[in-house]
Amino acid sequence: MPPPTIPANAFTVTRDIRFSDSDPAGIVFYAEFFRMFNDLFEDWLVKRLGIDFAHQFQVEQRMFPLVHVEVDFKAARRMGQKMDLSLILTRLGRSSIGYDIVCHDDGLEILHARFVTCVASKKTMETIEIPADIRAAMEAYQTACDS
Amino acid sequence: MPPPTIPANAFTVTRDIRFSDSDPAGIVFYAEFFRMFNDLFEDWLVKRLGIDFAHQFQVEQRMFPLVHVEVDFKAARRMGQKMDLSLILTRLGRSSIGYDIVCHDDGLEILHARFVTCVASKKTMETIEIPADIRAAMEAYQTACDS
Amino acid sequence: MPPPTIPANAFTVTRDIRFSDSDPAGIVFYAEFFRMFNDLFEDWLVKRLGIDFAHQFQVEQRMFPLVHVEVDFKAARRMGQKMDLSLILTRLGRSSIGYDIVCHDDGLEILHARFVTCVASKKTMETIEIPADIRAAMEAYQTACDS
Amino acid sequence: MPPPTIPANAFTVTRDIRFSDSDPAGIVFYAEFFRMFNDLFEDWLVKRLGIDFAHQFQVEQRMFPLVHVEVDFKAARRMGQKMDLSLILTRLGRSSIGYDIVCHDDGLEILHARFVTCVASKKTMETIEIPADIRAAMEAYQTACDS
Repeated sequence: MPPPTIPANAFTVTRDIRFSDSDPAGIVFYAEFFRMFNDLFEDWLVKRLGIDFAHQFQVEQRMFPLVHVEVDFKAARRMGQKMDLSLILTRLGRSSIGYDIVCHDDGLEILHARFVTCVASKKTMETIEIPADIRAAMEAYQTACDS
Repeated sequence: MPPPTIPANAFTVTRDIRFSDSDPAGIVFYAEFFRMFNDLFEDWLVKRLGIDFAHQFQVEQRMFPLVHVEVDFKAARRMGQKMDLSLILTRLGRSSIGYDIVCHDDGLEILHARFVTCVASKKTMETIEIPADIRAAMEAYQTACDS
Repeated sequence: MPPPTIPANAFTVTRDIRFSDSDPAGIVFYAEFFRMFNDLFEDWLVKRLGIDFAHQFQVEQRMFPLVHVEVDFKAARRMGQKMDLSLILTRLGRSSIGYDIVCHDDGLEILHARFVTCVASKKTMETIEIPADIRAAMEAYQTACDS
Repeated sequence: MPPPTIPANAFTVTRDIRFSDSDPAGIVFYAEFFRMFNDLFEDWLVKRLGIDFAHQFQVEQRMFPLVHVEVDFKAARRMGQKMDLSLILTRLGRSSIGYDIVCHDDGLEILHARFVTCVASKKTMETIEIPADIRAAMEAYQTACDS
């Protein structure tokens, strides 16, 4: 049962906490959370929105650099436990994508993270407008989560 | 279809190659393979042999340090591709566990790694005899792979 | 020459950007920044404040978990470049330590990060009051940066 | 004092063992050693041989993929300790570079690793002959170590 703030249709992935995620206190090393966040964003594009992330990067020369992140850490996760990661789209700008990632387990909120990512050209390193097909897929996701 | 050297019953996990695995050449950064190897060994214990790895570490105070590894890298893996990782048990000693990990995709061998891991006490940092229940589970795995 | 916001006496470490830090775009993978932040905090304790971080953790059973972080990413860093990381102490609470990390190079601000870390018992996982010797060392640092 | 097997002129870097290197047992997570190996090879090229690694990669489109590695782990390293890493060149082929990395501290050998790396084109992903200037720098290093 996710926390009440998570839309029922939100993209959610369950992840085991492994030895390789963990620090000398036996809990997830905080830098590893950011790797998990990046993996979740990529999986959301690929598995939920149907956007070929590798193709975007390798062929379309588009990338999704992070502009801003803030995270409130609320509970630790220990090796051998698991957690769910849910992605909630909060705002679509001209070139920026606002989203939250909430890590939770059985109603307990482990952390709440807020992101602003933009779409940029790999060649110029400048932001570009969100391509129409990507915007459409994200708007459809937002609608699905709101309903 | 795995390479002919992989037993049909070998523990095999399929893994996406993500942005976070990849180096500036767009292929898996080789140190990341070792993290994947560690995750596979842990998953093998937990998901195939039914051994609670976290309990072994946290409660039984046992750990599985690596003594020797050698790897032949045969083909690169690129972001957006996937691969299978298979674990083959090769030798059970008094306290040492010999196993191979083969990474492959559709018959192509990507790499072949050979490991010797031992069981050790977290308190003394000395090797200990493989506990009887762990040995039995590993022998059963070996039998399943041989048949 | 650091940006004007960095106190002259701030603890600053210069770091090469290496292949292993870099993502498929050839720039620092953002999760790696958080690892660098953690290393800088540890080095600040050990090399500037004279606090034995390993002893704190292993013997005193104290740890420094992150409660909150926010980062504004302003410029990318490419493999082969270098950057400076400076730590600025912003607030000492009962058990919490507020500090900023600014990454910069030759006056260019690469990112600005704000942290709240607390001191906690490794056994109870509860926050504890900042120990007197650690508080004294941090206050002395703050005074040195203000002057 | 290095172990007797390390040439006096070998490229050696001293490294602190930090929290971020360490696993739940409080010792270096073995995958992190491979990251350190990659950093040492890069530093050896840049700081000892005077080869601009980033330029080789970004402009000359050359890369140095690993073909084979084997490691004997002999002693653990704990957070708060330090160690020296020394690189010994063992063999120069047409396109391959054989070298050992020994990690040691005060005469104690922590691990001994053996590598075969090749020079490859980033475009074709095929091996190429070691460029003359790189070969000359490596031969000079070998001579310095032998004397």
